[in-house]
Amino acid sequence: MILAPDQNRRGTAYGLGVGPGDPELITLKALRLLRAAPVIAYPAPESGDSFARAIVASHLPGGQDEIEIRMPMVADRFPAAAIYDRAARQIADHLDHGHDVAVLCEGDPFFYGSFLYLFARLADRHRVEVVPGVSSLTACAAALGVPLAARNDSLTVLPAPLPEDVLEARLAAADAVAIIKLGRHFAKIRRVLDRLELTDSSHYVERATLATQRIVPIAEVAAETVPYFSMILVHRRGLAA
Amino acid sequence: MILAPDQNRRGTAYGLGVGPGDPELITLKALRLLRAAPVIAYPAPESGDSFARAIVASHLPGGQDEIEIRMPMVADRFPAAAIYDRAARQIADHLDHGHDVAVLCEGDPFFYGSFLYLFARLADRHRVEVVPGVSSLTACAAALGVPLAARNDSLTVLPAPLPEDVLEARLAAADAVAIIKLGRHFAKIRRVLDRLELTDSSHYVERATLATQRIVPIAEVAAETVPYFSMILVHRRGLAA
Repeated sequence: MILAPDQNRRGTAYGLGVGPGDPELITLKALRLLRAAPVIAYPAPESGDSFARAIVASHLPGGQDEIEIRMPMVADRFPAAAIYDRAARQIADHLDHGHDVAVLCEGDPFFYGSFLYLFARLADRHRVEVVPGVSSLTACAAALGVPLAARNDSLTVLPAPLPEDVLEARLAAADAVAIIKLGRHFAKIRRVLDRLELTDSSHYVERATLATQRIVPIAEVAAETVPYFSMILVHRRGLAA
Repeated sequence: MILAPDQNRRGTAYGLGVGPGDPELITLKALRLLRAAPVIAYPAPESGDSFARAIVASHLPGGQDEIEIRMPMVADRFPAAAIYDRAARQIADHLDHGHDVAVLCEGDPFFYGSFLYLFARLADRHRVEVVPGVSSLTACAAALGVPLAARNDSLTVLPAPLPEDVLEARLAAADAVAIIKLGRHFAKIRRVLDRLELTDSSHYVERATLATQRIVPIAEVAAETVPYFSMILVHRRGLAA
């Protein structure tokens, strides 16, 4: 394809799925694009280190421009539009100058990631390519040794911040369920699982694939210690094999 | 950890997610284990080439023993227990002789894969490690440029072989839906989407990430041409950003 000259000079924004945490769970494609990009961008907390950048730190060639997208870590709040507006302008400025930008995304860019806020701001006027990554969904199942779903099971992903009655209704109607973003919602989830008598068929993991990964029976989890990066897998019916 | 001598001599079976089709979407970890294994095993149709093996063909070092697990391609049928029994015995024999075995899995091993039938036969008496891969779920979303889910959306994966009334009820109750394994079930899915007035908010892709990838409006898809490796993404509510 021959691109028009002005298109030809413009850069591409890559939404790179860098995987769930283990630096070895990045794909060859994401690694190639990461190393070739003159600019990288990544989410970070208000202060402290970026998890997405930490995942790829050992792969970075050095000398890249870096755009930090610092976001106050307030659970469940509507994303700060002004912060994404500003980050999108910074990225767009590099693209307009012909520089590719690799946007680092924990897990997969389109699986509950903040990348979609940048995608919505850039994709209409810039070239944006999404490179899928290993999501926390499959990483947690692998860590637990528990298949997600098989044959004609339906599989439902439920964010733990949902209201208790919504969680209960959706859990009661599903075959297999992954409950994500547990954090401070763990006690609520325990109540729902207990009422549905699903606690014994549930599996808990936190920080899957990291050195700090932890798998414990749900009954032994202290609610106040549960991190955001944790997951519960539930099978309402056994997985026949 | 010091292993008992008999454990020490035995091999490990690796369920390797090799990604959705693009050979570059394998992880560094899966590639390392794939190349190091003296034995590889993979599913294949009754005759013809294995898709899982084709994905990694360019990465193979040569000289590995190969176990083909040939399965008649009859849609929706209960997996042939005898075929998996035999494959598990072949793999176990290598493990007992101290050889690691890399079992190739399209996408991710625990996301609707046939690997779980081997896992169920091996995991109680052998070391089995599952290496998560990029699943078709996130690969299709990336190919379409359509986020799967955000914030507190629930996301439901529905296998197309489910009965029409079940599909309709679950689609009507979900926020975001991925319908997988379309194949000969496409016409049924079209009817359900039309009745729920969701056709215009649905996105279709087949063979995502392969050279033969195809994205067309659902209204233009000829039902008789739809392959098994295809997916429809539906958002019942828009994805606010």
